[in-house]
Amino acid sequence: MTSPLAVALGDPAGIGPEIVAKAWELRRSAALPPFFAIGRPAAIKAVWNGPLEIIGSPADADHCFFDALPILQVGRPGVKIVPGQPCLEGARNALDSLEMAVGLTRSNVAGALVTGPISKAQLYSVGFTHPGQTEFIAERCGVSDDMVAMMLVGPTLRTVPVTSHIPYRDVPQEIRVQRLGMKSRTVMRGLQRLFGIPRPHLAIAGLNPHAGENGSLGREEIDIIIPAIEMLREEDLEVTGPYPPDALFHARMRQTYDAALCMSHDQALIPLKTLHFDEGVNMTLGIPIVRTAPDHGTAFAIAGENAADPGAMIAALRVGAACAERIGQE
Amino acid sequence: MTSPLAVALGDPAGIGPEIVAKAWELRRSAALPPFFAIGRPAAIKAVWNGPLEIIGSPADADHCFFDALPILQVGRPGVKIVPGQPCLEGARNALDSLEMAVGLTRSNVAGALVTGPISKAQLYSVGFTHPGQTEFIAERCGVSDDMVAMMLVGPTLRTVPVTSHIPYRDVPQEIRVQRLGMKSRTVMRGLQRLFGIPRPHLAIAGLNPHAGENGSLGREEIDIIIPAIEMLREEDLEVTGPYPPDALFHARMRQTYDAALCMSHDQALIPLKTLHFDEGVNMTLGIPIVRTAPDHGTAFAIAGENAADPGAMIAALRVGAACAERIGQE
Repeated sequence: MTSPLAVALGDPAGIGPEIVAKAWELRRSAALPPFFAIGRPAAIKAVWNGPLEIIGSPADADHCFFDALPILQVGRPGVKIVPGQPCLEGARNALDSLEMAVGLTRSNVAGALVTGPISKAQLYSVGFTHPGQTEFIAERCGVSDDMVAMMLVGPTLRTVPVTSHIPYRDVPQEIRVQRLGMKSRTVMRGLQRLFGIPRPHLAIAGLNPHAGENGSLGREEIDIIIPAIEMLREEDLEVTGPYPPDALFHARMRQTYDAALCMSHDQALIPLKTLHFDEGVNMTLGIPIVRTAPDHGTAFAIAGENAADPGAMIAALRVGAACAERIGQE
Repeated sequence: MTSPLAVALGDPAGIGPEIVAKAWELRRSAALPPFFAIGRPAAIKAVWNGPLEIIGSPADADHCFFDALPILQVGRPGVKIVPGQPCLEGARNALDSLEMAVGLTRSNVAGALVTGPISKAQLYSVGFTHPGQTEFIAERCGVSDDMVAMMLVGPTLRTVPVTSHIPYRDVPQEIRVQRLGMKSRTVMRGLQRLFGIPRPHLAIAGLNPHAGENGSLGREEIDIIIPAIEMLREEDLEVTGPYPPDALFHARMRQTYDAALCMSHDQALIPLKTLHFDEGVNMTLGIPIVRTAPDHGTAFAIAGENAADPGAMIAALRVGAACAERIGQE
């Protein structure tokens, strides 16, 4: 039995509080592991009438979890934050809650870290200097950005984008042999350690249509991706490709690999969200702790309207718990 | 009742002959319209033992279709073409068959044109100078390349790539306001004429992750795609976007539009093939005739092994017949 999971609520003006509360309501039918929220109790009360219990320490979560949603309070009471109206105070609170959640997971008081959605624009305005939560968490874990990988996890597909939030036209210059090598090794270790796959198979996509068709539709496969694949094979890793990007994600093909390494954000996200829009989990590989997140944003536009789907949060809790249990058996 | 469909076999060394024969076998259960093959009878006999009837004119197809696969013979008998072994004679035959099939459809002797897979590399070696079958057919119909659009059709999704077989890095320079406008108008007219949708809704994807996030992840949306959308709206066309590419193709979203205009080959093909790998139809819009094709290649590697799936050929026949019938009612 692992420690309860720490769930940072994310931006209190977004849908984070609502989906955490809705996930807790479904704890029995969804067979969720004990978890506790971290953030402002008022953010949950503003959108939910269910039982909330303010706890003094994560260890209390196990006792009350089946009767009330446990929450570790972060942030000054009395500050008014309105769902759907992001503000600096809320962004500051999201960051403080994340900081505490990382610390508790780092110290093994929490079994895994699950992070609710934040607004990067809002965080930047309160002095946040990391590109996103993933890089912040990596730094707090003492791991350089190069060594971590973001993996998107759905029920029938795992994808890892080599490049992420950069313009389309900047992608080719960011595809380099060493970078593909480091990402691939991180993914392989993650699949072994967190998913218990002894010898994972990584399928690597091409960048160009038809994977470049022997260079006639682009040379990145010949110049960069194939040399990276050969390098990884020499390390005795089970890596194949480059595959034509449009032929890599159909049902039969998905059964042949454990994860697909993708060259761009949308090459990884289009198939994942096309298949598993409401249940995608964003996972950080290459750090000592287990960290998952629902793969969607703050959705300020629908915050407070009781319209948010907790599916991805539930999936993030389940994947986080399963990985934490596997690590606990090490 | 429309005229029978003309089915060019494609490269005789590929899987074209096999999937046409297998489709004919399923004519009753799949409720297929009468069609006739065009090409070398020997190419079908090499992979299939069923009844084949050489016809003298397309009008004969209707009579024999339910008892035998009708074929209009093109090509010298006696030439040996081996499945899986492409050769110049086979490429020449594929081109001659295509030429005849286009002519018969242009003259309304055939109700629609369905083209089997060809090898571009093989065709180039016999002097073919068009980028692909689509451009060849457009020229034979007297329509410039700019005015045609390739639409991929699956049971729950239609996508149109604005750019196609070019390297990834060349895509941004090919995205221009006027080009988006012409492609969109062609798609709108095609959806009205061929699919009977009085006022089609076209969803236009962004190029960059998150559709550029207000310019912070790329400017093509602001500089090109949004101006094109505004231009089309002023023409009273129902066009929306730009959408984040990864949020455009999940089940709920697909119900909100009739076709998605995509910026690149893989942006259009990844969702289509992820969802509908064995039943994707490639369709040419903007020409006077109906033309469909299975959305896969020659698959030389499995030709002659009785391993090819006729699903996409069956889908191409059905879509072609439905569109031909709609045009016939004009």
